[in-house]
Amino acid sequence: MASEFKLIERFFTRPVPDTVLGVGDDAALLRVNDGMELAVSTDMLVSGTHFFPDTPSFFLGHKALAVNLSDMAAMGAQPRWATLALSLPAVDDDWLEKFSAGLFHLADEHQINLIGGDTTRGPLNLCITIMGEVPEGQALRRSGAQVGDDIWVSGVLGDAAIALAHMQGHINLPRQNFETCSLALHQPAPRVALGLALRGIANSAIDISDGLLADIGHILKSSGVGAEIAFSALPVSSVLQPFLDQPLGRRCVLAGGDDYELCFTAPAIFRSAVEKVAVTLGLRITCIGTITQGNRCEVHAKDGSTVDVGVSGYDHFR
Amino acid sequence: MASEFKLIERFFTRPVPDTVLGVGDDAALLRVNDGMELAVSTDMLVSGTHFFPDTPSFFLGHKALAVNLSDMAAMGAQPRWATLALSLPAVDDDWLEKFSAGLFHLADEHQINLIGGDTTRGPLNLCITIMGEVPEGQALRRSGAQVGDDIWVSGVLGDAAIALAHMQGHINLPRQNFETCSLALHQPAPRVALGLALRGIANSAIDISDGLLADIGHILKSSGVGAEIAFSALPVSSVLQPFLDQPLGRRCVLAGGDDYELCFTAPAIFRSAVEKVAVTLGLRITCIGTITQGNRCEVHAKDGSTVDVGVSGYDHFR
Repeated sequence: MASEFKLIERFFTRPVPDTVLGVGDDAALLRVNDGMELAVSTDMLVSGTHFFPDTPSFFLGHKALAVNLSDMAAMGAQPRWATLALSLPAVDDDWLEKFSAGLFHLADEHQINLIGGDTTRGPLNLCITIMGEVPEGQALRRSGAQVGDDIWVSGVLGDAAIALAHMQGHINLPRQNFETCSLALHQPAPRVALGLALRGIANSAIDISDGLLADIGHILKSSGVGAEIAFSALPVSSVLQPFLDQPLGRRCVLAGGDDYELCFTAPAIFRSAVEKVAVTLGLRITCIGTITQGNRCEVHAKDGSTVDVGVSGYDHFR
Repeated sequence: MASEFKLIERFFTRPVPDTVLGVGDDAALLRVNDGMELAVSTDMLVSGTHFFPDTPSFFLGHKALAVNLSDMAAMGAQPRWATLALSLPAVDDDWLEKFSAGLFHLADEHQINLIGGDTTRGPLNLCITIMGEVPEGQALRRSGAQVGDDIWVSGVLGDAAIALAHMQGHINLPRQNFETCSLALHQPAPRVALGLALRGIANSAIDISDGLLADIGHILKSSGVGAEIAFSALPVSSVLQPFLDQPLGRRCVLAGGDDYELCFTAPAIFRSAVEKVAVTLGLRITCIGTITQGNRCEVHAKDGSTVDVGVSGYDHFR
């Protein structure tokens, strides 16, 4: 069987142009540019909890990095470096080859360097720590939402959740529809460019990993404000649209995790600035509500009634 | 059951004095001091691979951080920040209370800040990424060893391995002896102060996590040199001493992992400087050999014969 060191060399050692020292010493060395703060985040994906054990490893390589890039996006940070810690039941060259390809494909797209890591034997577990730069004082925090802010989300919501519902046998999607939605589940596109464009525009931001209501809830709690959401404004795909009058459809859009879109708030005077960003990036960005006084998040249907989904979002220990 | 967010708040959220923004947003924000490089390393500990599932969690909290601090020590870096990703089969308040206590006890000793992390459900897995600072160009790398350098190690070697041999039933140590050695296994003392003191003295350094020969091997490969080691010079405890004429004892001292002592090389003219560091730190530091031309690592007994242990060190996939 390949040794731990050969494995790192073969699958995870690549040139690291913007780094003082990459993989292969006790630590990597890097230089943060003057006037920049370093943004740091870590996310761990566990087999059986975050993904089915038989998920193709190309998708896992992509997703392990994507969920971390999404955290950089939510801070308005430029992602630059990442470390990977990987626990594997056994060495499977084919699995590793594809995992590595999925990881580096996305890393190259965002020009980030894999600077270090750890490989060990154990139940399948993927842990990435990502580091990025943001000019001092310009990070998009959860705590900056102001009463009167518009609430925006990028992309569409709930596709990953409805793909999962199909895989779990709760619904049966036509094949073409499932394939469209499963892209959202397996290969989410982290909204890094959007995060960068929102510096100086957004008052607060978060990425939607636990579900819209749960993640908006974090903004509300951190900022000490409430929110009103127009259910009819929520952006959904044509696949999810027909399910919106069912509890499952409502749960997917309001509480479905794994979307990795950005939710952000911005003063109403920046409405046209946000719309311009949407055009520039070729990305759907939708105003879904308003920040209010208080601490409640209310979702209203067109007739003014309250939409209740019964569950606020994904929590690994609930 | 406690929620993921309450769990983070209760057990892992502490003031972070030297950090712009700590736990609780999509990423932490930190500032690296001018003229400093950031040293980054990550280590993952897996239940059943790195520790017995019933290991007291205070020890696990200590050790998960200690092995990472040891990487900072080996680079001559001042550790400053860490993230923790934790996968748990279930929430056990008592387990978490003690894990957190073990972690923060060591974090406080080294004045480092836990700035972020992730908790999730899954097989027990502890992954820490550590970040530290080192003045530009002053990091202790594996690649700097020069022919003629003395080879030094701190502390004693093999106690962790012999404690493990006892726990696995290969030998039977008297209780007092086992307790002494198990301290090395469960609560290794990362040699951070030594690493800092060796800036400007050592040409190369590594921490001994996989066993002396394997880790010296990394220095030799990176530096393109060989080594001669005097077996009789290797520092061992009074517990391990009686086993040195047995294969098991030799394996413990030469190939036993989990020591987390530093192995470093320094020019012979710095011999008294190293000895002064030892006195200042109250730490045993022993010269065990010399860097040679070539690429082989030879261990000689007093009679000049070669000592062979048959295995060079710990590798998770061999």
